[in-house]
Amino acid sequence: MKRAGAGRAADHGLTHADRRGRARMVDVGRKAPTTREAVASGRIAMNAAAFSAIRSGAAGKGDVLGVARVAGIGAAKRTAELIPLCHTVPLDFVAIDIRLRARDRSVLVEALARTRWSTGVEMEALVAAAAALLTVYDMAKAIDRGMTVGPIRLMRKSGGASGEYRRGAGRAARSGSKREVRGRTGRRGRRGSA
Amino acid sequence: MKRAGAGRAADHGLTHADRRGRARMVDVGRKAPTTREAVASGRIAMNAAAFSAIRSGAAGKGDVLGVARVAGIGAAKRTAELIPLCHTVPLDFVAIDIRLRARDRSVLVEALARTRWSTGVEMEALVAAAAALLTVYDMAKAIDRGMTVGPIRLMRKSGGASGEYRRGAGRAARSGSKREVRGRTGRRGRRGSA
Amino acid sequence: MKRAGAGRAADHGLTHADRRGRARMVDVGRKAPTTREAVASGRIAMNAAAFSAIRSGAAGKGDVLGVARVAGIGAAKRTAELIPLCHTVPLDFVAIDIRLRARDRSVLVEALARTRWSTGVEMEALVAAAAALLTVYDMAKAIDRGMTVGPIRLMRKSGGASGEYRRGAGRAARSGSKREVRGRTGRRGRRGSA
Amino acid sequence: MKRAGAGRAADHGLTHADRRGRARMVDVGRKAPTTREAVASGRIAMNAAAFSAIRSGAAGKGDVLGVARVAGIGAAKRTAELIPLCHTVPLDFVAIDIRLRARDRSVLVEALARTRWSTGVEMEALVAAAAALLTVYDMAKAIDRGMTVGPIRLMRKSGGASGEYRRGAGRAARSGSKREVRGRTGRRGRRGSA
Amino acid sequence: MKRAGAGRAADHGLTHADRRGRARMVDVGRKAPTTREAVASGRIAMNAAAFSAIRSGAAGKGDVLGVARVAGIGAAKRTAELIPLCHTVPLDFVAIDIRLRARDRSVLVEALARTRWSTGVEMEALVAAAAALLTVYDMAKAIDRGMTVGPIRLMRKSGGASGEYRRGAGRAARSGSKREVRGRTGRRGRRGSA
Amino acid sequence: MKRAGAGRAADHGLTHADRRGRARMVDVGRKAPTTREAVASGRIAMNAAAFSAIRSGAAGKGDVLGVARVAGIGAAKRTAELIPLCHTVPLDFVAIDIRLRARDRSVLVEALARTRWSTGVEMEALVAAAAALLTVYDMAKAIDRGMTVGPIRLMRKSGGASGEYRRGAGRAARSGSKREVRGRTGRRGRRGSA
Repeated sequence: MKRAGAGRAADHGLTHADRRGRARMVDVGRKAPTTREAVASGRIAMNAAAFSAIRSGAAGKGDVLGVARVAGIGAAKRTAELIPLCHTVPLDFVAIDIRLRARDRSVLVEALARTRWSTGVEMEALVAAAAALLTVYDMAKAIDRGMTVGPIRLMRKSGGASGEYRRGAGRAARSGSKREVRGRTGRRGRRGSA
Repeated sequence: MKRAGAGRAADHGLTHADRRGRARMVDVGRKAPTTREAVASGRIAMNAAAFSAIRSGAAGKGDVLGVARVAGIGAAKRTAELIPLCHTVPLDFVAIDIRLRARDRSVLVEALARTRWSTGVEMEALVAAAAALLTVYDMAKAIDRGMTVGPIRLMRKSGGASGEYRRGAGRAARSGSKREVRGRTGRRGRRGSA
Repeated sequence: MKRAGAGRAADHGLTHADRRGRARMVDVGRKAPTTREAVASGRIAMNAAAFSAIRSGAAGKGDVLGVARVAGIGAAKRTAELIPLCHTVPLDFVAIDIRLRARDRSVLVEALARTRWSTGVEMEALVAAAAALLTVYDMAKAIDRGMTVGPIRLMRKSGGASGEYRRGAGRAARSGSKREVRGRTGRRGRRGSA
Repeated sequence: MKRAGAGRAADHGLTHADRRGRARMVDVGRKAPTTREAVASGRIAMNAAAFSAIRSGAAGKGDVLGVARVAGIGAAKRTAELIPLCHTVPLDFVAIDIRLRARDRSVLVEALARTRWSTGVEMEALVAAAAALLTVYDMAKAIDRGMTVGPIRLMRKSGGASGEYRRGAGRAARSGSKREVRGRTGRRGRRGSA
Repeated sequence: MKRAGAGRAADHGLTHADRRGRARMVDVGRKAPTTREAVASGRIAMNAAAFSAIRSGAAGKGDVLGVARVAGIGAAKRTAELIPLCHTVPLDFVAIDIRLRARDRSVLVEALARTRWSTGVEMEALVAAAAALLTVYDMAKAIDRGMTVGPIRLMRKSGGASGEYRRGAGRAARSGSKREVRGRTGRRGRRGSA
Repeated sequence: MKRAGAGRAADHGLTHADRRGRARMVDVGRKAPTTREAVASGRIAMNAAAFSAIRSGAAGKGDVLGVARVAGIGAAKRTAELIPLCHTVPLDFVAIDIRLRARDRSVLVEALARTRWSTGVEMEALVAAAAALLTVYDMAKAIDRGMTVGPIRLMRKSGGASGEYRRGAGRAARSGSKREVRGRTGRRGRRGSA
């Protein structure tokens, strides 16, 4: 079985596709196991009735947010079952931070994942954030089906060959903006990391 | 085991919490199995390099989008494992539609779920959309870690006691807007549906 | 493929083994889907330090018990993955009730499962109770590794060909006691139900 | 994302809750991977008819106990899916030992789990024992629905910062008894280990 | 979301792909739930040492075959997790029959799956057979890594719009043989069933 | 808990059974984590109509083969859930290679799995190949229910105490043939490896 491009990105830059465009797992067999951490954030915006119901719940027993936290942790552990080409990564730590923001009637989720392994945990953090947000949706959907989930974004990651990534502070979330491009510049030539 | 509020929303309107604020599954035992359908949509925005890589892949073998579609279908089937209080729902149909939009360098996902069952499938559609979007992130993250996932929203649902829901057309996605409130009015008194 | 005993207990009374003693799934194909419900209960006893820590947590945010509740609901949904010969049963309702009992420093769990299906949900209730109790163990084990889980028992079940079962009230939990035998008498000739 | 108490128990001693009582995963990122082993035991008591059916099966092909053994091993591997805040631990070895005890018509299960990892495997051993016992219940429940599962207990564990734990020999199972307290004394100051 | 071909095969006859060749789940929403059954068979051939070890095990406690049976039943229940476009089907009955055949040192597996549902269970039977055979491989691989799994084939199925299928008796297993083509003729015009 | 034969094969050579023939997990606790790789191959033969449908799909968007590839990768990651006594192995790399062979109207699958771990990945490669083949069956079964899956075989493996294995080239697949026996001779005395 000859295989091209194990671990090296093909021309198009998509590490999960070989030169013929076929999906594959990235080969992480030559990567050293180091401490890798990622933080993702996301929010869900809702109407006043839903926000108030969650807030009063949160003020009391807090179960909506408690269930969302557990959902996020559970989803992080199953990332490789959800994202087809992800590696199974044994996580050292997952934490889900949830806050209410009255200004725009939002629930804000921040998810952190950490491992000592040979591939990064960006997807684990993003999946955890998404699952926590969708759990909030599930629990309040009888009040407001119009809730909006997102933006969900990677805030920072560290460890691994592609080094540090930190989302530009004080910026709108538009992808491809100037500052973001600058941020990416720091990782030039490090494409293809998993 | 006496239990309050099986199937009926408590005062706060959160169907997944009893009167003391504790999380619980909604009791769907008195709901009739009818055809229920839901459509959710979402997008992921990215920089020019990532968009171009996905587009050229899509023009060729299309594997990035193909893998995302499979991820969405697979995630829909596992919704009850991800969202703690969701019922296990045997789905009749799941479809994932993916489009590229050059204007804002976005991949757009629309996910449809359908069942003949006694509870709705909004969560299945939302989870499918989220998994497909996150799979796109995974496959292109070596090019652009700044991609933004969202908004993810329920576009419409039908079937069940709470009846039809259709997201207001031609409107910004802000939750709680006037039209959305009006939309909800039509479902007044139908809270508590699962 | 000739098969003996589909749905009918072999001589030894074990419905999950054929006449040659080989494990098999019970055939429920001729059972009518009816409402079936089961309640299981269990407890975990602990030392004073662990009990006090859980109680003070419960008085505050209640997360130990909240996580245990979510664990019980989640485990009920996955019963067929844990118990090799169980059928996959779509549950209408699962509820986990948790109480603290200072007298014997115990956390008491009661789990209810309900379905409209052609096989009973005793295992779903028992698995839910066990998972909730073990989750309490997990969260307090750094304080007391000597915690004792059990007894875990079926309290009642209804629906299905084997009819009603109700554990004898005001009795010690010993299996095989006189009243229990009497209780079973009422189900004479109904063996082999799933 | 500032986080308090990663890896260190908060005041209340519950390692899986932060200072505000919110559930979280314990951070094992600074723990060294060492050999860790745990043994849990449990029993299920039943009436004479059920015990005799299992015994005659065991004398023949042994499938009831064989299926229970497989269930225990399978459950150990999925502990992190069942117990919300458990880490995914790759196990080096799982063994399930099952014996019949005629004196009290019981099936006795002993489950051993071992890993070379940075967190202990007490939960894996306990979950394995519980799943094996519940599988016995499932296979014999048509004969005796009054079977009693438990006590399920950790018998010993070794490895990790919290060191050796060995349940006091020749003692009743009541948690919090004098000898048990003495046993715990040996681990004083080692709270908070995962 | 307009969708072509829900439930109807596109020109190429592949029911799991739409007219543009994209993968999708077949829509079974208009199919009536009826009793559907499928039987698949397979074999694994091995050298004399492996065959003798399994046979002596089978003569004794029979655990190799017992574990393979449990693996087959377990895999049938998870078919929808393994085969990306399969529907989740609640099974009424799964049975795994395993025989040894000395003539060609083979273990023969026959797997039966049955449901009352709106889609067939061919995949469940095939997945069950494959998992049972691979489990035999796993347990004997230290003796013979050269074991050969297959052929695995659908022997018969009944129920559903595509009606009865029965593999031609007394024929070599080559697909596309004359008798097989004749067999297929009987199902002409029934393509597209799920 | 005394246990015989942890890690050492019992007399019969079956590493997954103890001396009394009871199933158990192999103890890999004394094996060093080294790079281990395995390649399995398999095929599915079909009639002309099915082959042509898949080929025309493959010529276009290629989704049948694309879905099969994703299925194989996904199944490799879940091997320990399907094969009861397999260890959970975190994989560094999985690749699925799929080719069409017009001569015998077959789809050929080759699956490679690699890890740096203390147990081999033969089962991961075999499970991946089987899942990819069965996915092809699923997607084309409406055209040809007579497709034949197999032979599925281990082609080679490397790493670990049992050393290199390479299936004899230019040989019929019959297990137990002379060359194969010679191949095994090279591993004499290394039985019992996991």
